[in-house]
Amino acid sequence: MSHSQASSSSPIRAIDVIRKKRDGEELSAAQINYLVQGCTNGEIPDYQVSAWLMAVILRGLTRGETSALTDAMLHSGEVLDLSEFPAKKVDKHSTGGVGDKTSLVLAPLVAAGGLLVPMISGRGLGHTGGTLDKLEAIPGFNVNLPVSRFRRVLDTCGCAMIGQTPEIAPADRKLYALRDVTATVESPYLICASIMSKKLAEGIDALVLDVKTGSGAFMKEEKDAAFLAELMVETGERMGKSVVALITDMDQPLGLNAGNSLEVVEVLEVLRGGGPEDLRILCLELAGWMFHLGKVADSVEQGKALAAERINSGKALEKFRQMVTLQGGDALALDHPEKLPQAKHRLEVNSPASGYVTAINCEAVGTACVVLGGGREKKEDVIDPAVGVVLHRKVGDTVSVGEPLCTVHYNSDVRGNRAREMLLRSYRIEQTPLTQKRPMVHRVIRGLGGK
Amino acid sequence: MSHSQASSSSPIRAIDVIRKKRDGEELSAAQINYLVQGCTNGEIPDYQVSAWLMAVILRGLTRGETSALTDAMLHSGEVLDLSEFPAKKVDKHSTGGVGDKTSLVLAPLVAAGGLLVPMISGRGLGHTGGTLDKLEAIPGFNVNLPVSRFRRVLDTCGCAMIGQTPEIAPADRKLYALRDVTATVESPYLICASIMSKKLAEGIDALVLDVKTGSGAFMKEEKDAAFLAELMVETGERMGKSVVALITDMDQPLGLNAGNSLEVVEVLEVLRGGGPEDLRILCLELAGWMFHLGKVADSVEQGKALAAERINSGKALEKFRQMVTLQGGDALALDHPEKLPQAKHRLEVNSPASGYVTAINCEAVGTACVVLGGGREKKEDVIDPAVGVVLHRKVGDTVSVGEPLCTVHYNSDVRGNRAREMLLRSYRIEQTPLTQKRPMVHRVIRGLGGK
Repeated sequence: MSHSQASSSSPIRAIDVIRKKRDGEELSAAQINYLVQGCTNGEIPDYQVSAWLMAVILRGLTRGETSALTDAMLHSGEVLDLSEFPAKKVDKHSTGGVGDKTSLVLAPLVAAGGLLVPMISGRGLGHTGGTLDKLEAIPGFNVNLPVSRFRRVLDTCGCAMIGQTPEIAPADRKLYALRDVTATVESPYLICASIMSKKLAEGIDALVLDVKTGSGAFMKEEKDAAFLAELMVETGERMGKSVVALITDMDQPLGLNAGNSLEVVEVLEVLRGGGPEDLRILCLELAGWMFHLGKVADSVEQGKALAAERINSGKALEKFRQMVTLQGGDALALDHPEKLPQAKHRLEVNSPASGYVTAINCEAVGTACVVLGGGREKKEDVIDPAVGVVLHRKVGDTVSVGEPLCTVHYNSDVRGNRAREMLLRSYRIEQTPLTQKRPMVHRVIRGLGGK
Repeated sequence: MSHSQASSSSPIRAIDVIRKKRDGEELSAAQINYLVQGCTNGEIPDYQVSAWLMAVILRGLTRGETSALTDAMLHSGEVLDLSEFPAKKVDKHSTGGVGDKTSLVLAPLVAAGGLLVPMISGRGLGHTGGTLDKLEAIPGFNVNLPVSRFRRVLDTCGCAMIGQTPEIAPADRKLYALRDVTATVESPYLICASIMSKKLAEGIDALVLDVKTGSGAFMKEEKDAAFLAELMVETGERMGKSVVALITDMDQPLGLNAGNSLEVVEVLEVLRGGGPEDLRILCLELAGWMFHLGKVADSVEQGKALAAERINSGKALEKFRQMVTLQGGDALALDHPEKLPQAKHRLEVNSPASGYVTAINCEAVGTACVVLGGGREKKEDVIDPAVGVVLHRKVGDTVSVGEPLCTVHYNSDVRGNRAREMLLRSYRIEQTPLTQKRPMVHRVIRGLGGK
């Protein structure tokens, strides 16, 4: 029941850092750094780190603490130095959604506009898809390049897409593993530090954040998405980067296809100037901001025009083909989508009523993809790249009874039927149309340093 | 960022229990039991337990949860079955203070009144003394009896005083070790469960709680002491025990002597009908309640009268002598205090001014005893039973400049001088007397089941 208090001149002790955060006080950068270093090198035992994490969840962090945490995690490992490349380095990060394949469009598109895109991505998490899983649907594509080869691909074509390397932000790996088993994942401060430490380790100048909100996002409420977005923008700017966050809609799947191979097909459609309107709009919006922050466009509008031009000229697709080839992928599959993994069976989910589609439970669609084998229920699960869902109706569309709402692509009857049930329940059909349509971009958030 | 939710029919998982408490929801007894069992047998890793402990610190527990936690900790080990003894079993527990030697008076005194007192006590913690350390000042006294011998001593003389055995409430030992290093000690709910699980493992019918408040207590504020007291009373009553809590004063040391051997001397004074007034009053008050709850007295007043009679008749001292002998102690030392450990040196702390003693920083007096070697600064420290402090002035007394405030009994000059400095600073001497005297018993707290 008693404890000794550390004076300000004493060496930092983990228990004092935990107690201070427990009592809602602000930690110094030195204290945060001590904790992150000790956690990473194993000198501070997990049980102290997890007690601290829970205190952070319940007490929160100040902006200064969040920056200090991000900085400590960033410098727990290697920070890429890409200063040898003359072009501005720009990246985009999404907080995750269903059918969100924008990264595969943006990396080649923005590289085609003259910027360098050193993209380090993740895998599917929960009901959301992952960029690496989508890329691996392309036969031969290797996301596990060592940093030396990552640099060579960047040098040759201006973009490269790989997974986390062990050298980058090891503190995040350690902390995330602990958060995952101690119910300390859901803190905007910890999420911010995790995302920003990994992204800033890419050695970029500017970052566009796509923060999702709606039924398929981790942050269902726009206010929660905006809070995280502001936190990330401010943290990035405190660390000298040019950052913007777009709060974008994830209340229904993005585009029409969800599932790894099916999403690559849709990426190719967009790179060829087609594809579903919502996906195309979001890609141009994000690319416009990347060009603007990367200083090859004076405004976002100019950036969007540049993006449209690089698609229409075929330059963006050419860049994608080049990157795929450099990373070991079969570029022929890009022109012959039948070479991409195909599911053995298809079944249609037909509408039980006539009327208007007024909502699609987007998380349920994502979960249906996981059930089909397109995502992981356990870490060890192997992804089936071929399975997924193709939507025929989206929110606002009309449908007659018996018409198909979507098609399930599946390899196992049991899984196909389970997914069908979930998809059927995920659609809401009503007699009166919606009066308001949710916008694609809800808000743009810039920090004090932004214009 | 995603997590699966356990349905009510799923097996209990540690992460769901942590999450529920993190979100401020009430846990079921089954969930609490799962956590306590898993912690004790090592199936739930420490990092999950500590995250849960921090959530408990910041979210609190309901009364039902506190009882369930106490019950789970109680049944993590052996619960003594003393039903073979016809007498009612009664004990007293104090939250810890300076100069608090009441246990040594009460065990023999209450046994002399016909009740059984199976007392399992602790060691000094922080600035407070511990009953076991005081008992060990009596040459030969063995506090480490196995349960079988503990029963034999109880059978022969009606009281016995030992330390924790490994069989009793192992969950508390495990949890306390973790709380100690994760800044999760200071929760009234966890403190209540820790105290009550160990006390109820003694197989008692009734318990008198002495909850200290003031500058020498862990709970400096009376409202905090009262909150813990209410929690413990309600928890004990929910578990079918007769419980009362007395909020008593610890704003200055209890009695005049602090230090293990010196305190035994004062215990003998009280058992002989003398001793300092405050100590005598508190012993009679606590004994009165123990007799009342143990049903050998119809009222507390009757219980106090019985206690006074057992002291005056010499029966209480006789019982103490018998217990000391049965537990291997040198009973001769009780009649010849010079056989108790004596410090080599003494020095007086003289008053720097004339006036009234208006306050004594009680925690500072306790810390001075620790500095002298009478308590532990580190777990491994060996106690020096001989050292301590004898007060000559207490709050309300007058003093002239140069008159002794107290005498330090010490074995090392360095320690003696440090203690002297601390003691000098701990006294407040003012020109005007206090208008109000703090009472010995601030409040009596009984639960709904009490009268």
